[in-house]
Amino acid sequence: MPAGIDDGSRERRSIVLGDDGWSVEIIDQTALPHALVVRRLASLDDVAEAITAMRVRGAPLIGATAAYGLCLALREDPGDAALKQARARLAATRPTAVNLRWALDDMVARLAPLAADARVAGAYARAAEICAEDVAVNRAIGEHGADLIARAWERAGRARPVAVLTHCNAGWLATVDWGTALAAIYVAHERGIPLHVWVDETRPRNQGAALTAWELGQRGIDHTVIVDNAGGHLMQHGRVDLCITGSDRTTATGDVCNKIGTYLKALAARDNRVPFYVALPSTTIDWTIDDGIAAIPIEERDPDEVARVVGRDDDGVIRAVRVMPEGSAAANFAFDVTPARLVDGLITERGVCPASRAGLLGLFPERQA
Amino acid sequence: MPAGIDDGSRERRSIVLGDDGWSVEIIDQTALPHALVVRRLASLDDVAEAITAMRVRGAPLIGATAAYGLCLALREDPGDAALKQARARLAATRPTAVNLRWALDDMVARLAPLAADARVAGAYARAAEICAEDVAVNRAIGEHGADLIARAWERAGRARPVAVLTHCNAGWLATVDWGTALAAIYVAHERGIPLHVWVDETRPRNQGAALTAWELGQRGIDHTVIVDNAGGHLMQHGRVDLCITGSDRTTATGDVCNKIGTYLKALAARDNRVPFYVALPSTTIDWTIDDGIAAIPIEERDPDEVARVVGRDDDGVIRAVRVMPEGSAAANFAFDVTPARLVDGLITERGVCPASRAGLLGLFPERQA
Repeated sequence: MPAGIDDGSRERRSIVLGDDGWSVEIIDQTALPHALVVRRLASLDDVAEAITAMRVRGAPLIGATAAYGLCLALREDPGDAALKQARARLAATRPTAVNLRWALDDMVARLAPLAADARVAGAYARAAEICAEDVAVNRAIGEHGADLIARAWERAGRARPVAVLTHCNAGWLATVDWGTALAAIYVAHERGIPLHVWVDETRPRNQGAALTAWELGQRGIDHTVIVDNAGGHLMQHGRVDLCITGSDRTTATGDVCNKIGTYLKALAARDNRVPFYVALPSTTIDWTIDDGIAAIPIEERDPDEVARVVGRDDDGVIRAVRVMPEGSAAANFAFDVTPARLVDGLITERGVCPASRAGLLGLFPERQA
Repeated sequence: MPAGIDDGSRERRSIVLGDDGWSVEIIDQTALPHALVVRRLASLDDVAEAITAMRVRGAPLIGATAAYGLCLALREDPGDAALKQARARLAATRPTAVNLRWALDDMVARLAPLAADARVAGAYARAAEICAEDVAVNRAIGEHGADLIARAWERAGRARPVAVLTHCNAGWLATVDWGTALAAIYVAHERGIPLHVWVDETRPRNQGAALTAWELGQRGIDHTVIVDNAGGHLMQHGRVDLCITGSDRTTATGDVCNKIGTYLKALAARDNRVPFYVALPSTTIDWTIDDGIAAIPIEERDPDEVARVVGRDDDGVIRAVRVMPEGSAAANFAFDVTPARLVDGLITERGVCPASRAGLLGLFPERQA
């Protein structure tokens, strides 16, 4: 059973091909957790808007969606110039996640050599493969991650649920299915390991409170939403057995760029000897970068995302409320970098390795220069 | 010029005696930053509600307000039983801040020996003294703290504004006037030192975004609101010169219990060699406690404060919006403890000292056992 919800008619993944065979259906994640809105994307414009507005988000899902964005662009114009333009347009939607560029590079490398009239079919075939690969990779990550959770359960004498803290949403909504950090939780849950998940709210966009809590609730997995400020206190008091987060970009040396605030949780985990793991498909590894803090561009988003919080009011209406004075400035850094020294292990589709060049090359020897 | 705002007719402190000479006027801090609402407290019930609902908050202001709560209780019944009952009622309003208990103990010790008919006058006199002492103490904290900011400015070659990060609200709204952490900023501003303040939003109640940003805006001090997740990223990139926070309770060994999330910022400051200071009046020192993590009770507040965010909607209406799914649980820990080892100095009314027993006893030798 996949992690994605069943909407009555069929399995619902975060991205699927429409019944027409060419448009793309996504779950509009900005409407969650209050409504499950499926949105049809029928053009490059639709796809670019969906990524920029974070209707789809999560490094792996952004990559898959961008692949379909190229499909839709090529349907309108399969020529070289259009391919190049569409690639540039999509690459500019989000600057930090590396899967986006990986998926675009992969697609363009395969499509550019094809004759124009073969490109649309080729693009859809490869986009479907990218999605299928993502699902398989994430399931493998889930198995390896669940092994770590199983070990934590053994350490606790199987006497109580394993307490896992996660930040942001690295669940099936962030990928095509299963997720990365949450894949470990879903597989552990399948194996019958009792779990309790501390869900960081994840300001400013509340992907934890809105998406991770919703995913876990759908699966009946015990969880508690906390503000991003609370994790250190919980770790000081022995209430977290391990942390698992996702990654938007991982350097060749094991630095992890993930949702803003991940670094603070990694510091608290180290200070309290709580294992801190990062789950990632190898497509998020940027083998060209060694120093994450110096080299990874950190997206700055609209300060309005900090100034105004979106939610459902008591009448059921979705509204934004301003939480700071008119006239005060806000800044909105979307990601931060957790240095490899604070990461106890990287959970990849090939297994768990130390967060280091040697660790990564041990699992991915083909990357040896 | 005090830090408190001028509302047109007179200086406005966070708490003042009403024109009738006996009721108490507070600024309802739950209405800020969107409206400046002055609320009249005329009974013990009013005071207890104002503290519990956090219309007044901040360790020093809670103490001063509780002192007036005893005054109002004694007006109705100056007897021993009523005094005892009122004390117990007020002490139960908030469990973590130690000033509350300090102010109540101080008042009761002075009032209990008095004849019943002398108690009301004695109570008002002492409550006024507590307020006056708080203002003087905070001004002194501001002077000592400003010296630290001045040194940071010198280290920066006076070439750019000093960047200070603060968490929660330790401003004049948290005290009778001046504040503690913000007192340092106000005095530095008075001295002409250019400043930029990074204001942590401070979920769940957003005292940073709502109160600190408002205070700084009123004084024309440059500031930027950030989510609580962002401070580590800023420190990694050299964009914070020093951190200053307040304290709700400080142990005899220098552990600091302050708003939830303070510990995470202290960890980031240490990891990036950013000085981390805590400003506190000596009334927040709990000389009976050595281990803050083990011994300080951490208030757990209504999970609804996490689940629903209050702000002003686009039509100017104050509303709460729910940011998580119905059916998901939330937990709301109000404070955490920053171990003394992460604190570079305690800024008290008597000067700055190391966060240690020896440091504190150096400034407060009368506390030597």
